Amino acid sequence: MRSLTVFCNAYLAPAQYQRLTSGLAGHRLVRPEIPATSNLHAGGPEAACRDADIAFGQPDPTDIVAGVRLKLIALTSAGYARYDTAEIRNALQPRGGVICSASMVYADACAHHALQFMLSDCRQNVAAVLDQAGKRTWPKDALRDRCRLLTNSRVLIVGYGTIGARLTELLRPFHAHIVALRRKPRGDEGVPTLPLAELHAQLGKADHVVNLMPGVPETAGMFAASEFAAMRPGTVLYNIGRGTTVDQPALEAALRTGHLRAAYLDVTDPEPLRPAHPLWDAPNCHITPHTAGGYDGEFDRQVDHFLENFHRFMEGKPLADKVIG
Amino acid sequence: MRSLTVFCNAYLAPAQYQRLTSGLAGHRLVRPEIPATSNLHAGGPEAACRDADIAFGQPDPTDIVAGVRLKLIALTSAGYARYDTAEIRNALQPRGGVICSASMVYADACAHHALQFMLSDCRQNVAAVLDQAGKRTWPKDALRDRCRLLTNSRVLIVGYGTIGARLTELLRPFHAHIVALRRKPRGDEGVPTLPLAELHAQLGKADHVVNLMPGVPETAGMFAASEFAAMRPGTVLYNIGRGTTVDQPALEAALRTGHLRAAYLDVTDPEPLRPAHPLWDAPNCHITPHTAGGYDGEFDRQVDHFLENFHRFMEGKPLADKVIG
Repeated sequence: MRSLTVFCNAYLAPAQYQRLTSGLAGHRLVRPEIPATSNLHAGGPEAACRDADIAFGQPDPTDIVAGVRLKLIALTSAGYARYDTAEIRNALQPRGGVICSASMVYADACAHHALQFMLSDCRQNVAAVLDQAGKRTWPKDALRDRCRLLTNSRVLIVGYGTIGARLTELLRPFHAHIVALRRKPRGDEGVPTLPLAELHAQLGKADHVVNLMPGVPETAGMFAASEFAAMRPGTVLYNIGRGTTVDQPALEAALRTGHLRAAYLDVTDPEPLRPAHPLWDAPNCHITPHTAGGYDGEFDRQVDHFLENFHRFMEGKPLADKVIG
Repeated sequence: MRSLTVFCNAYLAPAQYQRLTSGLAGHRLVRPEIPATSNLHAGGPEAACRDADIAFGQPDPTDIVAGVRLKLIALTSAGYARYDTAEIRNALQPRGGVICSASMVYADACAHHALQFMLSDCRQNVAAVLDQAGKRTWPKDALRDRCRLLTNSRVLIVGYGTIGARLTELLRPFHAHIVALRRKPRGDEGVPTLPLAELHAQLGKADHVVNLMPGVPETAGMFAASEFAAMRPGTVLYNIGRGTTVDQPALEAALRTGHLRAAYLDVTDPEPLRPAHPLWDAPNCHITPHTAGGYDGEFDRQVDHFLENFHRFMEGKPLADKVIG
């Protein structure tokens, strides 16, 4: 077995680092002095990355281009926008390099988060939390009047990948009528799946619109005034994708007129959202601080997901979550 | 077809009242001047109830005893504690009278509420809501560290009826390990179901304890200090049953020591809970104001559920949600 050099700039606690070194026995693991502190930012350029065979974490995009031996880039995030460039694709192609995301690591937690948002809306949970934190008026009748069921509701999932597939599973017992949109429908999604060009036509048919789109240049502001206008009055928007996909002033306006009943956002543009940003105070706009992917065991799963792909790579098998190459 | 007299003191808006009168064409519908304003309280005694064949709503218990022609009492609540008395049972038995609850009307909404509580805990939703309402610190790392998955968790459902069965359906895609406890296990529950005597043994094996017990004398304070002590550290308690089933000072103590990770309560004793009640401020104690059963369409469903049972009653067929008789 050939001994490979694996560069890792993922933030890992000692237990997970131990898990990684055990899994890579016989290979060389190199780490920068300062690992990437967040999946949302790349680590800086590192000579050790450019000399490696494999990079695990959030490597600097310029290192991927310059690192002529790099063949497997295993990201620790579900998103991969900053790696989805012509320069990187062109650099990887001749050397047979591939990029894998960590979608499967985050799909379950993100789907939980989306369903939590949907049920929170149905059960008027935010109003109950605020009443407990405030005057404790026991607003039973007022809240019950606004409570609803998710059962039989019409859900449009925009950007259908591993998270959408998991959300579909979670929604099954609610007998939700799900329509999915994705760049390239494959036909094996298990729910009616249409190309993104159908967005406008489908927006008017949904009670709940779940946006899972990545933050690439083509998706910037794809939910803007005309998309909100295409939605039926009372529609609820959820964003577990990326903040840049939403025109935030247009969203705020659609909430202020009451055309949208509510918005539940786990992502914004930028992040963090400054405390005085108007979106915080838009009516029925509920924001969580990019927590959708988190869970205990997240970093163990990261390492396991990487090791699984590492072994597949060594054996020439198909890789999980391959996104480029 | 014999023409029957139906007494109804349920609160119904004009549209639902119209639905009821249409459904009862050929029969006599009598209403008190003031209907019961809430499912949680019986209406007062009414001569018209004592003279009726059927009562729909929240009739006065003394009217059920005195109303010798009353054969079908169709309640508008899932709970029926105030009707579950020896006096009423003894009065109904010789005349072949039965009492039906409205469990099926509320099962789906209550199961939604329970799952919303569970996912809210997993996703640390309350902390995010309070941060948005407060300093907007974007506590991404702190909340992600406390987020978890519901997947594969161990759920104990105490008081397994229609709500528990619906919650089991909703939990299926989470691959939860569910154990149910009920007074009389039937064997057809589809999940391992044990008698309530197994409560203590099972409390120590669960991550999530969902209490759906009714508020009858035998269940008063059934969750007390020894039950909390029997739970593993970090267990979360949910109460969608009745507030009287929990020894509230003992719950508060178990939350203050941190032995219970959190409690999510839709019911308290009494209701409303006064603003200065210590339970509001117990650590990780989250209270909704008895909203679990509410949803748009609730009152249409009430009428439909009653009419369905009315027709079954006329045809001598088995009744839905029969609880006494």
